[in-house]
Amino acid sequence: MAFSERIDRLKSSLIREILAAAQKPEVMSFAGGLPAEPMLPKVDWSEMPVSLGQYGMSEGEPALREVIAAQARLLGVPCEASQVLVLSGSQQAIDLASKLFIDPGTEVLVEAPTYLAALQSFQLFGANCLAVPQEADGMQLDALRQCLEQHKPAFAYLIPTFQNPSGARYSEAKREAVAALLDEFNVPLFEDEPYRELVFDDEQATPIVSRLQRTSWIYTGTVSKTLLPGLRVGYLIASPDLFPYLLRLKQSADLHTNRIGQWQALQWLGTAQYDAHMAELRRFYRIRRDAMQAALLEHFAELADWQVPEGGLFFWLTLKQPIDTRTLLKPALAADVVFMPGEPFFVDPESNLGHVRLNFSHVAPERLAEGLGRLARVIREAQAAQAA
Amino acid sequence: MAFSERIDRLKSSLIREILAAAQKPEVMSFAGGLPAEPMLPKVDWSEMPVSLGQYGMSEGEPALREVIAAQARLLGVPCEASQVLVLSGSQQAIDLASKLFIDPGTEVLVEAPTYLAALQSFQLFGANCLAVPQEADGMQLDALRQCLEQHKPAFAYLIPTFQNPSGARYSEAKREAVAALLDEFNVPLFEDEPYRELVFDDEQATPIVSRLQRTSWIYTGTVSKTLLPGLRVGYLIASPDLFPYLLRLKQSADLHTNRIGQWQALQWLGTAQYDAHMAELRRFYRIRRDAMQAALLEHFAELADWQVPEGGLFFWLTLKQPIDTRTLLKPALAADVVFMPGEPFFVDPESNLGHVRLNFSHVAPERLAEGLGRLARVIREAQAAQAA
Repeated sequence: MAFSERIDRLKSSLIREILAAAQKPEVMSFAGGLPAEPMLPKVDWSEMPVSLGQYGMSEGEPALREVIAAQARLLGVPCEASQVLVLSGSQQAIDLASKLFIDPGTEVLVEAPTYLAALQSFQLFGANCLAVPQEADGMQLDALRQCLEQHKPAFAYLIPTFQNPSGARYSEAKREAVAALLDEFNVPLFEDEPYRELVFDDEQATPIVSRLQRTSWIYTGTVSKTLLPGLRVGYLIASPDLFPYLLRLKQSADLHTNRIGQWQALQWLGTAQYDAHMAELRRFYRIRRDAMQAALLEHFAELADWQVPEGGLFFWLTLKQPIDTRTLLKPALAADVVFMPGEPFFVDPESNLGHVRLNFSHVAPERLAEGLGRLARVIREAQAAQAA
Repeated sequence: MAFSERIDRLKSSLIREILAAAQKPEVMSFAGGLPAEPMLPKVDWSEMPVSLGQYGMSEGEPALREVIAAQARLLGVPCEASQVLVLSGSQQAIDLASKLFIDPGTEVLVEAPTYLAALQSFQLFGANCLAVPQEADGMQLDALRQCLEQHKPAFAYLIPTFQNPSGARYSEAKREAVAALLDEFNVPLFEDEPYRELVFDDEQATPIVSRLQRTSWIYTGTVSKTLLPGLRVGYLIASPDLFPYLLRLKQSADLHTNRIGQWQALQWLGTAQYDAHMAELRRFYRIRRDAMQAALLEHFAELADWQVPEGGLFFWLTLKQPIDTRTLLKPALAADVVFMPGEPFFVDPESNLGHVRLNFSHVAPERLAEGLGRLARVIREAQAAQAA
């Protein structure tokens, strides 16, 4: 039996295995990106029409596409409902963009670090990923220009607002500069925005796609971080030149997105009820962020450096004494605590040792200090063993 | 901007465009594979736990996997729940199998005709599809052996029970013979069974995968034809050597299947309520099948030959005077009737002119004769014009 060449590039998913291990109730998990259970809204299904059981359109429900386009226009994204493709979660946008752009050897520009599952998908399709270092306020512009001068990536994949894993938010200046560079070199932009709405301050962060003058673009979002991930409803909005291809790829992948989830999303998006839920969610997560910051100061001040994230779901720690954090997973699990090693978020893991991603939304504040204390002990012991 | 090579192979979907045209209420559609609206069961959501809003496992809900495995064992498929992967509709199995097996130039064995959207997906990934002619009781065995002797396909894709489009059901003898041949040449089997349960007689049709001794296999099914397609819940069951790869490909495609649809499917599968619903559905569709047969005898007896299907959703007509049926679409639409041309179901459409697929589940029996009369007129006029 012969598999395709891409199967040689199919990596065992570290996230999957960790999440599986973290199912045990005694394990305290800082690994996933799970919304807090108490903040899952109670939803009402009683009014859903029976006719939604029938097959639907590959594009998505017309009314939902209208609402998504209207919300995107409020953010400054110039679009019509005809450019909106409803997806089976925004992860699907990564699969579709991979299919649209990537042959073996195709160059793709990504941030360093970047979203692990995007990196894996691009590499599965054979991409040669070009990493541009990320700073607290976005990509290093000099490195971006240098990369664009030396390469011709098929597209740039960016997560400019509360990036997974780094939590970084691009400044307005960097948003402008990145848009100008992508326009100058005519490189399409794939802007992934799952965390945009989980924001704890009032700063502006207009999407980069809204600043483009010339190059093609894909913008994605989801209700998974704000409403219910179990619905599996996300979306992409694309420039009109890309849309027809993405639509056909979507149809080939799974015909259309489940209509019951789409109906439920439509009950919320753009309503006063949703605004109230979002305000509550932000307050709730800000409290958890603050509790995590306090616990980190207590247990990690001597071990690591970090920025306090102004949104999203993650702290990103840089260990003062670098160590391959993948080797910490086993002793951490033995101590009933689990985290996400930073290495797999880099195109070149071996040159980027010593980062840790910690989710702050899932563990209850009163258990945080205990869990982080256990993790700090595991790190100290490993570093001591390494030094010995 | 440069797309991947596969985009050159991305065909505009005839099905999509026809279904879009068929949305108009005045158009009578024999084109789709839509369940009849009156037979969509009324479902109850009131008991669904809030916790299903959270992210789920890529494999699917454990309880649903158990039920699917138990049902498959009743059919003779030797499997455990650990081999079941819940999918966002069974179309997704085609995408995952394409990724698992197909590089540009990879040979894939298919029936002639075969399911259009599978053919398109295999070709999108660059497959060289080898077509083995289909008869009323399954593949031509001589042609199959010859193909296997001369080629080394990565897998064989078969729809042995009420195939879309031909409606053919493999005999027990052919099921045995095909399994033996695939084992002999060690070619994995991808057996696609969306229509198995829509059966109007008592004949046996044990899955071919249950007869395999040696080669690897994927078996797929769905609740779309029996419950609600809008749920987007299908599944695959795979031999243990294939399962881990398919699971990771699923995770990369869309993380996991929507859990609300999975919960609803679980309320039905294997229950007495589901058995009663299925009995009603079969009775309802048999009546529609019989009404279609009567109307066909009235309007198509001189125009075409066909078998009466013992299950599924389609009649497959072979015109006595072949004509490229794709050219009939426009005049048919002008007459407010729409059907599915047969040519796109073949690897080599130009050598297979003159077939028509007609769905019998969607149009109400009292409107059938009128619609088929219109279609017969369109065909007669085109044949007269061709002869002139």
